Amino acid sequence: MFQTFEATSTPDQGPPRLAALRAVMAAQAVDVFLVPRADAHQGEYVAPRDARLEWLTGFSGSAGFCAVMQAQAGVFVDGRYRLQVRAQVARDFTPVHWPETQLADWLKEHATAGMTLAYDPWLHTATEIADLRQSCPDLNIVARANLVDLIWDDQPALSPAPFSVHPIDFAGESHAAKRARLAKALQAEAAVLTLPDSIAWLLNIRGTDVARNPVPHAFAILHKSGAVDLFAAGEKVAAVRDHLGPDIRHFAPADFLAALSALDGKVLIDKRSCPDVVVRTLTDAGCEVIRDLDPCVLPKARKNVTEIAGARAAQARDAVAMVRFLAWLDREAPKGGLTEIDVVKALEGFRRDTNALRDISFETICGAGPNGAIVHYRVSEETNRPVKRGELLLVDSGGQYLDGTTDITRTVAIGPVGEDERHCYTRVLQGMVAVSRIRFPKGVGGQHLDALARAPLWMSGQDYDHGTGHGIGSYLSVHEGPQGISRRSEVALEEGMILSNEPGYYREGAFGIRIENLIVATPAPAIAGGDDRAMLHFETLTHVPFDRRLIDLALLTDAERGWIDRYHADTLALLAGRLDPETRDWLATACAPL
Amino acid sequence: MFQTFEATSTPDQGPPRLAALRAVMAAQAVDVFLVPRADAHQGEYVAPRDARLEWLTGFSGSAGFCAVMQAQAGVFVDGRYRLQVRAQVARDFTPVHWPETQLADWLKEHATAGMTLAYDPWLHTATEIADLRQSCPDLNIVARANLVDLIWDDQPALSPAPFSVHPIDFAGESHAAKRARLAKALQAEAAVLTLPDSIAWLLNIRGTDVARNPVPHAFAILHKSGAVDLFAAGEKVAAVRDHLGPDIRHFAPADFLAALSALDGKVLIDKRSCPDVVVRTLTDAGCEVIRDLDPCVLPKARKNVTEIAGARAAQARDAVAMVRFLAWLDREAPKGGLTEIDVVKALEGFRRDTNALRDISFETICGAGPNGAIVHYRVSEETNRPVKRGELLLVDSGGQYLDGTTDITRTVAIGPVGEDERHCYTRVLQGMVAVSRIRFPKGVGGQHLDALARAPLWMSGQDYDHGTGHGIGSYLSVHEGPQGISRRSEVALEEGMILSNEPGYYREGAFGIRIENLIVATPAPAIAGGDDRAMLHFETLTHVPFDRRLIDLALLTDAERGWIDRYHADTLALLAGRLDPETRDWLATACAPL
Repeated sequence: MFQTFEATSTPDQGPPRLAALRAVMAAQAVDVFLVPRADAHQGEYVAPRDARLEWLTGFSGSAGFCAVMQAQAGVFVDGRYRLQVRAQVARDFTPVHWPETQLADWLKEHATAGMTLAYDPWLHTATEIADLRQSCPDLNIVARANLVDLIWDDQPALSPAPFSVHPIDFAGESHAAKRARLAKALQAEAAVLTLPDSIAWLLNIRGTDVARNPVPHAFAILHKSGAVDLFAAGEKVAAVRDHLGPDIRHFAPADFLAALSALDGKVLIDKRSCPDVVVRTLTDAGCEVIRDLDPCVLPKARKNVTEIAGARAAQARDAVAMVRFLAWLDREAPKGGLTEIDVVKALEGFRRDTNALRDISFETICGAGPNGAIVHYRVSEETNRPVKRGELLLVDSGGQYLDGTTDITRTVAIGPVGEDERHCYTRVLQGMVAVSRIRFPKGVGGQHLDALARAPLWMSGQDYDHGTGHGIGSYLSVHEGPQGISRRSEVALEEGMILSNEPGYYREGAFGIRIENLIVATPAPAIAGGDDRAMLHFETLTHVPFDRRLIDLALLTDAERGWIDRYHADTLALLAGRLDPETRDWLATACAPL
Repeated sequence: MFQTFEATSTPDQGPPRLAALRAVMAAQAVDVFLVPRADAHQGEYVAPRDARLEWLTGFSGSAGFCAVMQAQAGVFVDGRYRLQVRAQVARDFTPVHWPETQLADWLKEHATAGMTLAYDPWLHTATEIADLRQSCPDLNIVARANLVDLIWDDQPALSPAPFSVHPIDFAGESHAAKRARLAKALQAEAAVLTLPDSIAWLLNIRGTDVARNPVPHAFAILHKSGAVDLFAAGEKVAAVRDHLGPDIRHFAPADFLAALSALDGKVLIDKRSCPDVVVRTLTDAGCEVIRDLDPCVLPKARKNVTEIAGARAAQARDAVAMVRFLAWLDREAPKGGLTEIDVVKALEGFRRDTNALRDISFETICGAGPNGAIVHYRVSEETNRPVKRGELLLVDSGGQYLDGTTDITRTVAIGPVGEDERHCYTRVLQGMVAVSRIRFPKGVGGQHLDALARAPLWMSGQDYDHGTGHGIGSYLSVHEGPQGISRRSEVALEEGMILSNEPGYYREGAFGIRIENLIVATPAPAIAGGDDRAMLHFETLTHVPFDRRLIDLALLTDAERGWIDRYHADTLALLAGRLDPETRDWLATACAPL
C-alpha cells in the first residue's frame, strides 16, 4: 500500500524542537530564521530528510513556511490549510494567513531595524530572497547553513536508491538528441538545471527520491557543447552510468558549487526555481546570469509520438483498474459499511492488479458527502467518513506507470441523490465536454479556454475556485508546467501538450463534484469550408464512463449528448476485451447511449 | 452629409512637398525626420492642421508614419492599409510593412552611426522616444519644432470653435464631484491630462475639434486639491467659463509647458499617450514622474446610471433610424441600381431624421459582396460597388447623440444567398448570442470571454482576425479603453462598462459578415441555487433585428433560439410605437418568432 492514513506528526513534537532551534539562533546571533517546506528543487513533494517544516512545527501540508523568532513563530499557510494547520501545530506557533499576509508584512510588525534574518540559501529561490531584501531594507539578511539540521539528531540520510534508465521505448528520443537540440537553441554558455524532472527528462533517467514523482535528486549543468555535468551521489548513478555515456560527466553533489564557480560568460537559470546559492555563486564567479525559463520545460511539455502512445497505453491500463473499481463500488457501497479509507485501499488494489503500477501519482482524494467539498481533502483515520446512501463520492486519483502518468476524477452517486446534485453534476460535465470538443487556432492559451469549462456553471450562478487544468508529465510529475487551463495560464497551447480537464463544483458542508479526464493537444483535421489556418483540438486520453445516474438529460444539447455517447462507445470498445465478464456487463450498461 | 466619398489627397501632391522637406532637413543638418499620423493627443482622428502625414505623402489612413531621409522615405503602415498606401503615395515613397518592420530595423538598414534623427516632441509619446533611443544608441536623436509646419504654407489654423457644456442631465455627475473623487485617489501632487476625452469627461465639456469624436482640444493639470488648470484657446473656453467655475483656472495653450515646469513632487502621466515634451519638461523641473494610467480612464469607463439611461435612449433613437433603413433597403435593393454610396447616404439620412444626430460616430463601413470581407473598408467613388442580388451587404455605422454614442453592424442578404453564407452568418450570430447571454464572476476580463464569441466558428474551422469588442464612450469616442473583449484585454470587466459585441467572418473575395450590438456590464440577479458570489452579466443596449433569412435554425440550440426570439420581441415592443405603419409592419415580420 502506497497511501497511508496515519498522522505523520503530532502537535506535541513542536515545542521542544522550537526551543532547541531558538537556542541555536541565540548562540549564532540570528534573530529570525526561515524554515520553508521547500527543498533545493522546489518540488511538490520532499524527501524525509527535507521535511524540516513538518519536523519542527507538525504542519504537514504541501506548501508554507515558518518564520522563527525568540518571541514569535509564524506558520504561513494558504487557504487550503487554514483548518489543518490549527489541528497540527502547538500553541507555541501562530498560523498566519498567507499570501494575504506576506513575510515582509509580518516582519514589519515583529522585527526591528538591524535584526539579523538568516536563511538556508539552498531552500529559497534567488527571486524570493531578492524580493525579501527589497521589501525589508532595514534587516541584515544573511545566508547560513541550515539551523534545523544542526538540532535534528535523527534526520534521515539522503536516499542511496539508484537512478534507473527511462528506456527509449518510452522516452521516444535519446538523451543525445535532446541535448543536441537544447544546446543548439541555448543563448548562453551553459544552463543550470535544478528541477529534478528537467534532469530526468533530459537524460532519460528516473529516480525514487521523493514519493509519488519518480524524479532523481540531482543538479546538472548543460553546456553549449551539449555535454552535461551531473551532480549526484555516486551510488545513485552507477546503474545508469553506461546509459549516460561519455558526454555526461558525473560529479559528487559537493562539487556542484565549485563547478558553478568555474563557469563564465552567459549562464541561464530558471527564474522561478533557481536556489539563491546558485545565483550567488554564479555572480561571484563573474558570470552574466540570464533569468529565464529552464530550457527543458517547454520541450518536455511537448510530448512526442512515443510518449503520447505511452500515455494512451497507460490510460487504458489505468481505466481497466478504474472500471473494476467503479463496478465494485456499485456492488459494495449500497450494502453499507464502506468508509473513505476502504475505498482508497480498494482503488489502490485495483491499480496494483495491473502489475504495472510503480506508485500512485498523488495521495488519492476520496471525499464522501461534505468531505467532497474540501478541494484538497486527504482522508486520515481522524476524518474517515462512511460512504452513505444518498450522498456523492468524489474520487481523484492516479497512477505512475513506466509508459505514463495518470490522473482521473470521477464523482459517483451512492444510491439515489437529489435533483440539485444532478443539476450541478450535469453543469460540470457540460464544461468538461466543452473543453473536450473545442477546436482553436494556434496561439490560444489556457487562459482563453478556461471560460468554456465554466460557462455552464456561470449560467447557473455558480463557479469553482481552482484552475480547470494542469499539465502532466510522462512517467514524471502529475503537476507539470508550463501549460495549464486557468485564467492565469498565458502559455500558448502546442501540439503534444497533455493537460487535465477538470471542472468541479463544491457546496460547502454538502457535496463536491469534479470530473477529470486527461487530454492532449493535437492538430485538428481540416473541415470542409474551414479557413486555411492551423488549428488544434484535444484528443481525450482517459476512457472511464461518467455516472449516467447523475446526468440530467434535459440540460444537454444534442451536440453534448452526442459527444458523451461517442465517448462511452469508444470506452466500451477500448476496454471490453480486457475485463472479466461481470465487469464487462457493468461497463456495457454504464456505456449504453444516454 | 457628414461622410464624403472623394479622395482628400492625390499621389501627385507628395513629391514637391517631400523635396521641400528635404531641403529644410539639409539646412538644419537633420538626416532623418519623423512625420507621424498622430497629433499631441494620440487620438484616432486628427484636426486638418495636424494631418501632416496625409499632406506630405497622400496616405490618408488612421495610423502610420513616414521616416524621411534624403535618399529614402519609408511610409510605415499596418496590415489594414497595405493596398491603400500603394494607391495613395507616389513612387518617391516606399511603403514599409509595420509593425513587422520596426522603425529601428529600418534605421539600421538606411541610417549610419552619428546621423541626426529629429522628431516633434509633441507628436510622439515619451515611451516611443525612450524605446527608440534604446534600440538606436548610435543615432543622435533630437527634439525639434515641426519641420513640416515650416514648409506647409496654407496649413489650416487651429479651430476657434467653442467648447460646449455637457449637461448634468447627460453626465450624471458634476465636474466638482468627479474632480473631488479623482483628487482623493491621486497618489501624486498632480496628474497631467493630454487625452481630450479624459478632459471632456472630467470637466463635462465637449468640443468639435476633430471629426466624429466630440472632444475638446486642450491640455489640463489636475491638482491634488481637486483644482484643474485648463490650457486651451481663450475663444474656445468663453462659452463654458461659467460652467467651469472658480476651481478651473484657464490658461492659453502656450502657457502649458511653463505650468509643467512649476510643478514639483510626484506627477502622474499616462504612460501610453503622454507626449515626450511633457515628460522632458517635468523631468527638467525635478518632478518625480509616475508612469501609470490616466486617472480619468477607468472612472470614465464605468458609466453611471444617468449615462446608461442616456445610452438606452440614444440606442433606441438610433434603432428607429436603423429599422427604417433596413426596411428601405429591403424595398429598394432588390430593384437593382443601388450602390454602396447610395446606401451610406440613405442611412445617414435616416439618422438625420431623428433631429438629434450631432455627427456620425465614424465613417460608415458599407461593403457589398467581396468588399464586405475588407475589415476596415471605406467606400469611395473609386471603389463604389453596386448592391447586387445574391450577395451580402455589411453595414457598420453609428451616431453621436448628446445622450450617447452608438455603433451597430448588421449584415443583410440582398435576395437569396447561398447556404455557405447562411451557415457562416449563423455561427457568427451564435458567438454574439453567447457573449450576450453569459454571466460571469467579478474579476473576469475580456480576454477570458473572447473565446465564447469564437467557439461556434472554431468548431467549423473558422475564426476572425479582429477583437470581439471595444469600449465605447458616452457622447465621446466610439473606441474607448481600457476594457475590451479580445485575447489581449486584461482589464477586469466592471459594472457600467459599455462594450461592443461584434464577432464576424470574412471570406476574401467573396463576402463579409459582422453582427454588432452594444452591451453594458451590470450586476447579475441572484439565481436560486447559485453561489454567494458577485457576478456580472450584460444588458444589451442595441435593439435592431437580425436578418432571419440568414439564420440556419438547424444549427441553433434551444437556448440560442430562445434568446433571439426574446430579443426580437423586446425590439418590437421598444420600437413599434415610434415607427410609421409601413415600417412597423416590416419590423413585426422581422421580429416574429423564428
